[in-house]
Amino acid sequence: MSNSTNIDPETKPVLHGPFAQVLTLRGLAERGALGDAQLEVMEAGGILCANGNILAVGIFEELRKNYATLQPDIEERPGNEIALPSWIDAHTHICFAGTRARDFAMRNAGKSYLDIAEAGGGIKDTVAHTRQADAESLKALTLHRLHRHLAAGVTTIEIKSGYGLSPESELKMLRVIAEVQKQTAVSLIPTCLAAHTTPREFAGRNSEYLRMMEQELFPVLIKENLALRMDAFVEKSAFSVKEIRPYLEKAKALGFRLTVHADQFTSGGSSLAVALAADSADHLEASGDPEIRALAQSDVVAVALPGASLGLGMPFTPARKLLDQGAALAIASDWNPGSAPMGDLIAQASILACYEKLSTAEVLAGLTFRAAKALHLHDR
Amino acid sequence: MSNSTNIDPETKPVLHGPFAQVLTLRGLAERGALGDAQLEVMEAGGILCANGNILAVGIFEELRKNYATLQPDIEERPGNEIALPSWIDAHTHICFAGTRARDFAMRNAGKSYLDIAEAGGGIKDTVAHTRQADAESLKALTLHRLHRHLAAGVTTIEIKSGYGLSPESELKMLRVIAEVQKQTAVSLIPTCLAAHTTPREFAGRNSEYLRMMEQELFPVLIKENLALRMDAFVEKSAFSVKEIRPYLEKAKALGFRLTVHADQFTSGGSSLAVALAADSADHLEASGDPEIRALAQSDVVAVALPGASLGLGMPFTPARKLLDQGAALAIASDWNPGSAPMGDLIAQASILACYEKLSTAEVLAGLTFRAAKALHLHDR
Repeated sequence: MSNSTNIDPETKPVLHGPFAQVLTLRGLAERGALGDAQLEVMEAGGILCANGNILAVGIFEELRKNYATLQPDIEERPGNEIALPSWIDAHTHICFAGTRARDFAMRNAGKSYLDIAEAGGGIKDTVAHTRQADAESLKALTLHRLHRHLAAGVTTIEIKSGYGLSPESELKMLRVIAEVQKQTAVSLIPTCLAAHTTPREFAGRNSEYLRMMEQELFPVLIKENLALRMDAFVEKSAFSVKEIRPYLEKAKALGFRLTVHADQFTSGGSSLAVALAADSADHLEASGDPEIRALAQSDVVAVALPGASLGLGMPFTPARKLLDQGAALAIASDWNPGSAPMGDLIAQASILACYEKLSTAEVLAGLTFRAAKALHLHDR
Repeated sequence: MSNSTNIDPETKPVLHGPFAQVLTLRGLAERGALGDAQLEVMEAGGILCANGNILAVGIFEELRKNYATLQPDIEERPGNEIALPSWIDAHTHICFAGTRARDFAMRNAGKSYLDIAEAGGGIKDTVAHTRQADAESLKALTLHRLHRHLAAGVTTIEIKSGYGLSPESELKMLRVIAEVQKQTAVSLIPTCLAAHTTPREFAGRNSEYLRMMEQELFPVLIKENLALRMDAFVEKSAFSVKEIRPYLEKAKALGFRLTVHADQFTSGGSSLAVALAADSADHLEASGDPEIRALAQSDVVAVALPGASLGLGMPFTPARKLLDQGAALAIASDWNPGSAPMGDLIAQASILACYEKLSTAEVLAGLTFRAAKALHLHDR
């Protein structure tokens, strides 16, 4: 939303409007609590674009006068529309095959997530299906899901690997994501989650599994430029802080940005995220006051995943407390076949707002510029 | 699903299939807890239809042989589909104008539902917009919403009045619903909710308002056949048990079926529903053990409305306890502009299942034959 007029003379600017309202997020703080009075709502607004970028946002009639010399084409709007920034989903697992309907039934019959994981269900079930799937069908499944997201206005989507759990299957997933990127206008942010859990063939040998991935997977990721972010699931059913720390430190030393699945059922992960200055710590349903304080005092974005709370029938991330302590809170879908199969980011964010008493400004910030910060994006 | 072959000779029967699975709900109890082992899942099933009715459900190849004399047309299916009964939404308020976004923001800023109602927001805001709206625009808004429901497989929808709160505006709503019925294949069940709350012009004169409705509205409803069901909101912000009892007794004496908005914030309404042998008591978020026991021992269907819990950030209806005590539990959307604007019945039912640990059989029963019982329907 700069006012620069340094545009390609070949491309005619377009002035869109008038909209009933244009909601900009100008002036909202990077972190902490926000009130709705802080939202800039522009009545009869317009948006001036060129080369796919926004040149100016303002009152439609003023833009028309002020930019008359550019002779923009006018794209008239019916006048009852509201223009909003598009959404960013900073945490998804939408590249997968198979379903996990059986887990859903088991959970509702009283089995816990950890019970199911320990019984060989959960993530490992999706790993089996995703390993078997060929690249073409994985691509089609991923495209289908991201088009559902696009239809809901989500235009930047993080996608994790983590259902391969072998160097070749993790690479298959990340190459599929790279191929999908070529076929969509949605901006994809691939993340390597080889440390999602240890596969059956390495059962009981977590550290050995991680060393193998460092040696066999990391160099290929860099060589093929398949992912700039490294994620790890710090949890009883996955990796302990002690096990995962050297893995993430290695990744960081190689230049990967870091994010952590933290404090979902038991705390620990968020402290590591803070210690390693990760871009984000995601989940945090089990974060207590010390973890909340430490996150709020750090530069780590706290990412709430209400879809996982809803899917597991669990309490929500303490979003209100995090914001009140000064954290930057993003809201993402965690869309995955097991704990968060619903996928509807906006509905989930609205439900989180109802339970955690979030202002509209806090929700909008969490789905836009604070989510961008979680992904270390500075261009949107 | 009868096996009758008493069909119109002019109409050719159609055999649909094979489906990967046909899920019938045969053999499930009318009330109480259900396990998923009780679900009949028919692999390679088929459905034989004629005149818009189901003649038989069974294994596709067996149906093809057993009904060969009828020479049915075969409607081949791709083989990867699952056939399910369609859904019934037994509680909606989808005939309304205006939005209630301001309430949403107020609630999330810490104001309670009762605060908002007492401040003249809430229902009364929608009443103002719905009174102003002409019949054509109300019709268009209602059709739009029910087509969204139809796209999700909901083919029977209860719709309440209750945003008119004057005889003429209540009649406008119910006539709009009757007009909408002519334009849709969805089956609509209109319900009179003139006792939603007392309008401003009768503030402090609840009983006077109810007497006026009995005299001026009830006879027209019967004469024009506009609604066979009478509903009332028993709550601090609406009507006390003492105020509403004679109104519902009058309605019952005139032949209306009864339903009650009960125990949403404070208990009381469900006891009245039991005392008057209503078809259903809806909400029940505040029902305690005595209310749950009384409902379970009665013939009143307990209707959970998870959309209202999600919209208000409140606890869910104690669905597990109700089922375990033997109640018939239905699940409905409560779709309305204030407390439950989401409208997505299936997502809401799934979320309720996650938090209340409901089996798939209990959810399916709650969206089909138990919902039909709440509406006193015996034909589906």
